[in-house]
Amino acid sequence: MSQQMSQQPKKSPKTIYNFSAGPAMLPPTVMQAVRDEWLDWQNLGVSVVEVSHRSPEYAALMTQAEADLRVLLSIPDTYHVLWLGGAARMQFASIPLNFLAHGQQAGYWVTGTWSELALAEAQHLKKAYCIANAQDSGCAQIPPQSEWRFEDNTAYVYYTSNETVHGVRFAEVPKPTKNIPLIADMSSDILSEPFNINDFGLVFAGSQKNIAPPGLTIVIVHQDLLNTALDGPIPTMLDYRIQAAHQSLYATPPTFSCYMAAKMFSWIKAEGGVGVLQQRNHAKAQCLYDLIDASSLYHCPVEKPYRSWMNVRFNLRKPELEPLFLEQAARAGLRALKGHKQVGGVRASLYNAMPMEGVEALTNFMCDFARLQS
Amino acid sequence: MSQQMSQQPKKSPKTIYNFSAGPAMLPPTVMQAVRDEWLDWQNLGVSVVEVSHRSPEYAALMTQAEADLRVLLSIPDTYHVLWLGGAARMQFASIPLNFLAHGQQAGYWVTGTWSELALAEAQHLKKAYCIANAQDSGCAQIPPQSEWRFEDNTAYVYYTSNETVHGVRFAEVPKPTKNIPLIADMSSDILSEPFNINDFGLVFAGSQKNIAPPGLTIVIVHQDLLNTALDGPIPTMLDYRIQAAHQSLYATPPTFSCYMAAKMFSWIKAEGGVGVLQQRNHAKAQCLYDLIDASSLYHCPVEKPYRSWMNVRFNLRKPELEPLFLEQAARAGLRALKGHKQVGGVRASLYNAMPMEGVEALTNFMCDFARLQS
Repeated sequence: MSQQMSQQPKKSPKTIYNFSAGPAMLPPTVMQAVRDEWLDWQNLGVSVVEVSHRSPEYAALMTQAEADLRVLLSIPDTYHVLWLGGAARMQFASIPLNFLAHGQQAGYWVTGTWSELALAEAQHLKKAYCIANAQDSGCAQIPPQSEWRFEDNTAYVYYTSNETVHGVRFAEVPKPTKNIPLIADMSSDILSEPFNINDFGLVFAGSQKNIAPPGLTIVIVHQDLLNTALDGPIPTMLDYRIQAAHQSLYATPPTFSCYMAAKMFSWIKAEGGVGVLQQRNHAKAQCLYDLIDASSLYHCPVEKPYRSWMNVRFNLRKPELEPLFLEQAARAGLRALKGHKQVGGVRASLYNAMPMEGVEALTNFMCDFARLQS
Repeated sequence: MSQQMSQQPKKSPKTIYNFSAGPAMLPPTVMQAVRDEWLDWQNLGVSVVEVSHRSPEYAALMTQAEADLRVLLSIPDTYHVLWLGGAARMQFASIPLNFLAHGQQAGYWVTGTWSELALAEAQHLKKAYCIANAQDSGCAQIPPQSEWRFEDNTAYVYYTSNETVHGVRFAEVPKPTKNIPLIADMSSDILSEPFNINDFGLVFAGSQKNIAPPGLTIVIVHQDLLNTALDGPIPTMLDYRIQAAHQSLYATPPTFSCYMAAKMFSWIKAEGGVGVLQQRNHAKAQCLYDLIDASSLYHCPVEKPYRSWMNVRFNLRKPELEPLFLEQAARAGLRALKGHKQVGGVRASLYNAMPMEGVEALTNFMCDFARLQS
């Protein structure tokens, strides 16, 4: 490989498929376009990372990016779109701080690592409870509606639409019985399939799966929620009202991640929109789950209706073979397949940028590996 | 220009000098190196923005980056270095939330826009007071030590070493009379000249001036300060103890800005270190101030001992000429010279990456412009 590399120093000689759960792969055409204009953006003679976030060129970029996102997700003007710096995990605190007044509480569906952490942070700062807990089942399913329990004075309810560690998803949007605002962490599946924003008071997503490199969190919030009175002072940077009033320029935004998000939204539009990606994503995940279910070596611990389309989690029935599986996969160009340390096993993340060819390369490898072990 | 562009589509035909106050220019050699490996980092076949922040390659990058920063700034092991996502402005809240217990307060030197905002945020969340206020002088100087006023129960004192809007700097580190921890916002001058970290309890800096594209804030904090007991629960992401305990990987870090920071630290080492940059930065600023002071057209409103080396602020004595000045400068390739809207006028930001050639191009232009107007 090093000899081939010396002939083509800038390109890897082998097709690499990167199944990282995040930061994740981005579409090659987007990556190439970024490279092409890295040193000279819009004929300014400087890079996009060297221009002021208050320059007309950057403002125009962000106006277009927000317009594209609103089209892709059918977001009406009654919702603000906020482009916030930092990791999505900051929202675990911002949400209770912004929306829980004295005497109020929030309800959380706990279906995996991320919703468990979000509930813990809400309880750390304010009052919150668990609506239903999937941990008794090892997060192999979403608890049925009959087990959901809502308490009085619930100001909002919260769920994680896709859990990356456990590979489990809500097959349907969980709607509370009363007219309580619904909040969703869509960090790992936003833009992978359509959803009706009107079902939600607030949706947020970190950038590093389907949007851009890490460092950006997009918050989509209904204007009525911003009328909630704050229960005492909170850090100004976490106040959604302030960020909305300043068009997300209260502080310097993470301009490179915003720029790449704009590129990604253009790419999704060119691909045909979120509905087209939904079909592809379903086909990709189904291809892999079909192989797993037909195999005597592989096993998916998640019940069928709740299996993630973004993070396909599976085990080998001979766990002692998993290190060999991962090592041989990596050598075949199938990278970052190791499961999260909390659950072990294997995890193939199939975000929007992963082509079907990558899934086919993986299933072919899995078939070969299984045949050699049988 | 467009005809020339069509022959060389990837390069601007004219040398552009970008005087943006931030996001600011970065060294051309660093920018080129990033472009060269954008699609294939460390022969992994994927971009640095597509690898996990928990991968061995990324971990090695950050280990080296931190080691380089510790060498460049002579940071001993008694200090933690934290790599936090988001804008530096978040620290305006994090600092009082982390270090002010009930009954305590903090003292702030107010010498410009950024220290004024930091004090306001501390007062919004906790108790804080003004040690001395330069606003009476229009921030044309740092108030003399005889005017400093410290109050009882002061848990820390805080200043902004360089104010980007007003173009004013502390010529010396302001040391409180008692043994009170000193905290500094060095967002716009870190790594531009040596300082003694042992004078400080905490130093922080946003990335977008001298370090990397925006989205990263570096915090250097003495371990003893982290023994301060928290006064009630605070957002976990803002708790320096948690970030230190998790080696800044409590949440996904802004990996691209971290990677570029690593590149910048290598560049500074190769240039000869912070002391070499200090000499260059002084020479660059002095060249520009000398011209201003010798001119009948230009005027610097800041008193000489307190003039910033990073942000040279000046006015035209015929203010009606400023739009023409900025327009002709931009056409000559001298970009982003408009002063901050709060103070108007002209501002030339001369961070580490700005070469002396850029300053000479600016002073040549200024001489020509002045001659034509006289």
